[in-house]
Amino acid sequence: MSLLAIPNVTGHVDDLWRNAEELARRFEQRGATMEVVALEGASPAVIGELRTTDPTATIGVYVHYDGQPVDPDNWDGHPFRPETRFDDSRVDLLDPVNPEWRIHARGASDDKTPFAALTAALDGLADASIERRIDLVFLFEGEEESGSPNLDRYMTEYAERLRADAWLLCDGPVHQSRRPQIGFGCRGYSGFDLTFYGADRELHSGHYGNWAPNPAQALAKFLAGCKDEDGRVTIDGFYDDTRPITESDRVAIDRLPDVERQLRMELGFETPDSAWSYGDALMFPTFNVRGLESADVGNQARNVIPTTATASVDIRLAAGDDPDRMVERVEAHLSRAGYTVLGHDPSPAERRAGKVAKLTRTPGSYRAVRIPMDSPLARLLLEAAATASGEDVVALPTFGGSIPLYLFEDILEAPVACVPIANHDNNQHAPNENVRVANVWYGIDLWSVLLTTDWGSIR
Amino acid sequence: MSLLAIPNVTGHVDDLWRNAEELARRFEQRGATMEVVALEGASPAVIGELRTTDPTATIGVYVHYDGQPVDPDNWDGHPFRPETRFDDSRVDLLDPVNPEWRIHARGASDDKTPFAALTAALDGLADASIERRIDLVFLFEGEEESGSPNLDRYMTEYAERLRADAWLLCDGPVHQSRRPQIGFGCRGYSGFDLTFYGADRELHSGHYGNWAPNPAQALAKFLAGCKDEDGRVTIDGFYDDTRPITESDRVAIDRLPDVERQLRMELGFETPDSAWSYGDALMFPTFNVRGLESADVGNQARNVIPTTATASVDIRLAAGDDPDRMVERVEAHLSRAGYTVLGHDPSPAERRAGKVAKLTRTPGSYRAVRIPMDSPLARLLLEAAATASGEDVVALPTFGGSIPLYLFEDILEAPVACVPIANHDNNQHAPNENVRVANVWYGIDLWSVLLTTDWGSIR
Repeated sequence: MSLLAIPNVTGHVDDLWRNAEELARRFEQRGATMEVVALEGASPAVIGELRTTDPTATIGVYVHYDGQPVDPDNWDGHPFRPETRFDDSRVDLLDPVNPEWRIHARGASDDKTPFAALTAALDGLADASIERRIDLVFLFEGEEESGSPNLDRYMTEYAERLRADAWLLCDGPVHQSRRPQIGFGCRGYSGFDLTFYGADRELHSGHYGNWAPNPAQALAKFLAGCKDEDGRVTIDGFYDDTRPITESDRVAIDRLPDVERQLRMELGFETPDSAWSYGDALMFPTFNVRGLESADVGNQARNVIPTTATASVDIRLAAGDDPDRMVERVEAHLSRAGYTVLGHDPSPAERRAGKVAKLTRTPGSYRAVRIPMDSPLARLLLEAAATASGEDVVALPTFGGSIPLYLFEDILEAPVACVPIANHDNNQHAPNENVRVANVWYGIDLWSVLLTTDWGSIR
Repeated sequence: MSLLAIPNVTGHVDDLWRNAEELARRFEQRGATMEVVALEGASPAVIGELRTTDPTATIGVYVHYDGQPVDPDNWDGHPFRPETRFDDSRVDLLDPVNPEWRIHARGASDDKTPFAALTAALDGLADASIERRIDLVFLFEGEEESGSPNLDRYMTEYAERLRADAWLLCDGPVHQSRRPQIGFGCRGYSGFDLTFYGADRELHSGHYGNWAPNPAQALAKFLAGCKDEDGRVTIDGFYDDTRPITESDRVAIDRLPDVERQLRMELGFETPDSAWSYGDALMFPTFNVRGLESADVGNQARNVIPTTATASVDIRLAAGDDPDRMVERVEAHLSRAGYTVLGHDPSPAERRAGKVAKLTRTPGSYRAVRIPMDSPLARLLLEAAATASGEDVVALPTFGGSIPLYLFEDILEAPVACVPIANHDNNQHAPNENVRVANVWYGIDLWSVLLTTDWGSIR
């Protein structure tokens, strides 16, 4: 709770320095060698190492210490005066602790809990004189909530000191069922904005309707032609590079707790978009229309044929998909539909030459990462989580969201897995962010197991 | 030009009264009985009659005297200081008059020219002692540019004094080729806003993409399914009530000047939306997506599955189409696609019950009107325009735009035709509105012919 009392809003560099220095201090107190480092124009990162006498492997630990912006007026308490709450009231931590209590503060779950869990585990092992069986290297980031703009530079600059046999990305929530969860990948990201064109001015829909081209109608037709009845993308080759579902993936997916009915109730809809189960859907790239715009609707609508219509589409990439190639396939689909695809607004001559579309790629695309479910690393982590929790662990082949895990593979040349601790209902990014005490305890237990396990199998 | 000097911005009631009184005075000077009338809450109308000794018919004359708002800064001159201009400079009207000169003022073409043409024709006939062969009744409206909100009330209130064998709606431009044009109908109007729903909150597109319903994708699919490759509407029964193209319609359409190439060049596109010719397209109802909206695009776009997607659609009705029935067919199309169609935002329970859509009808729908091309009225008007101009007259079965001509049929129980005078390039509704001198001359000639023609055939 004292760590949570240090404000950590992403971008507030002075506050972030205080967090970084406190983290370095805490890990140094436990025998680590730590350094707060800062690249030009970036918030600081903390790197370090904690060695042991007879390590079975070197494991990298990634945690981020910055948090989302806060609006204190909307909090029941205050984002940086941590308190323990239960049933809408504050409780006194000297009482016998109830595992359902929650600690409220910005960063409580996203993402300071791993620091508390790891230091508590280190203390517990020290108290009991139990030897650690792994070397640790640390990379604590202070810009994750700003989109990790310098993570690649930090990794490149300090690659030598960040060598590890595997990395654990300690962020995100466990399963909605409250069962522990290990994630073996995240999706990549790609996307584009697509604009179709009609006449070069808004046309009177009476004088020119039925004759002049309507870009909104054309865009609807194009988008409709990108998916079939089952929600599968029909763009040529869209799934060609996607890594097939293996037998071990299949087993894991089939064992995922069935939350579809619960989610449909919670989110207020009846009919899923596709014939895939929720678990299977995560294994394939998406083609999601995230926005549409053409002229105006409702009270603002005028009786015109619009001049342009734009769709914004994001593509969540599955393992194997190439960010650029996916957009190239969309471009090829447009070409087959008769469009000349431009990267800029068409000139009058280009508009008059035939059907034209402008396609601009969303910046910052990157590939997905997913390690095999039957790899030694996957097996070790699942076993550790089961030992720590005594529960059936959810083995998630991939999260649906996008995290640039590829940086670990490409720059640090190591496999990476996601080891979450926080409860799913943690109000992440929102007021009253919290972590459930039971989840903190799980985190301590999990790290105690991870630190004392023989990792030899993964090398 | 003195009439154009009286400001006539629609809604400026004091100015409109000055116009109305001046118009009454001018027609009274020429022997008519005129009255400025004003319904509660409405700008005034001018009604009146001009009888003759041996009329062959009674013809109603509709003109509107209000004009669009003005922004004097954007005019070369001043909207209410009329001047004659040519080649970007002011010219002196005492010079020998060039028919290509233009008179610039708000209302010059839309819609004060018919007043000048008619009074000049009356003066000419009086000077030459030529008898008129028709009785005239007048309805001069002062709210057309505000959407004619009280036209039905004026017609109903004064129906007795507005009895006529036919009405001439004197508004709009002649053909783009500068040839005279008579229009035998206008389209009706109907429309709706349609909203599809996804989850009840924006969903993370990574966690829920490929699974949770995307209303933008669903809307694209629905809209795409409303038209075929040839731009024809595929909604069941959409064209069922549309009056078929007759042989005389066919002849007229085939004789329309071919402006397609010119229009495509002017408007900056290559490929029309449909397999119809421009002339044929006007004979059928449209289904025009006039706006699309779902979440955001471009820099504002977020990686979400939108909660809703909305399309605004206007339907320009052809003769025979029923405004309500057309929207009912869209609703039936939605039902066949599995949607429950609501007139309101769905409740949480309605959202969870299955696929729902909200459809709200655009207020103010009305049917089209089109008189037969081979009717005596049509033949008489075409012949009069040919006599007046000495040119090949464009016989337009219907304008593409919507005017509530049905009021003439329903309330005044008379057929109506559109008799435009102004040039098409008149900057209507815009700065530097103008009328070409040659068109004013044509108007005077046309009215001279109309006033001296035997209209017996139309009774």
